[in-house]
Amino acid sequence: MKQFSKEKIDKFIEILDFSKIEGDLVPVITQDSQTNEILMLAFANEEAVRRSLETGYAHYYSRSRSELWKKGETSGHVQEIQQIITDCDSDSLLFKVKQTGAACHKGFYSCFYNEFVDGKIKIIGKKAFNPEEVYKKQ
Amino acid sequence: MKQFSKEKIDKFIEILDFSKIEGDLVPVITQDSQTNEILMLAFANEEAVRRSLETGYAHYYSRSRSELWKKGETSGHVQEIQQIITDCDSDSLLFKVKQTGAACHKGFYSCFYNEFVDGKIKIIGKKAFNPEEVYKKQ
Repeated sequence: MKQFSKEKIDKFIEILDFSKIEGDLVPVITQDSQTNEILMLAFANEEAVRRSLETGYAHYYSRSRSELWKKGETSGHVQEIQQIITDCDSDSLLFKVKQTGAACHKGFYSCFYNEFVDGKIKIIGKKAFNPEEVYKKQ
Repeated sequence: MKQFSKEKIDKFIEILDFSKIEGDLVPVITQDSQTNEILMLAFANEEAVRRSLETGYAHYYSRSRSELWKKGETSGHVQEIQQIITDCDSDSLLFKVKQTGAACHKGFYSCFYNEFVDGKIKIIGKKAFNPEEVYKKQ
């Protein structure tokens, strides 16, 4: 994705409705742009949307750490945004991305790997890396 | 999707974490099970998850109307659930569905039809029905 100028980003921010989620957030669905597989669901505040559009890489807001979060900052598993789409109410975002490595911090390609089948959880995801290796302290 | 017994639904509810969104909700991504196109993002409380699993049809919680909401109740555009998947933190759901009609109340097949391109919104969705016809008062 090309990076956008501040003026164009301002116009997009104006359209978005951050009022529906406590902390002025919008939910963001992240989808593999090639396979359409869903990779994760996270939240973005205004700053995270701005940084995503300025840099072309997915940024979110971490509610647990209360801070801006560039996806892949620690792991190297960055997400290059190919398309950015908002919904009919402008209160949710969809990032279509080219995923480096894998999206899930537990080592799966997608965070959505627990299917509810016959009253039990069945793991349907592919393990792509060992989190202990990738996130180990130096 | 087969319908689940109360005992099995209880086990699934136990796994889910409703604590992260005000009002004890989880975000639900709804995806076309055949094309993997994303249809909408909505929220579910415990009751909506239970009704979805009991009936096999997608139910959500409407935050604007503060009530349980069976998708397609007015329009007939129901969503038959094919797979139900939760993520690594058990705080988000993915419904893979067979969509009757179209998902968006504005007449588009998917709610995600506004792409941000070159500083402007470009409508990329397909119009599937006329909302004035479908939602008209009898």
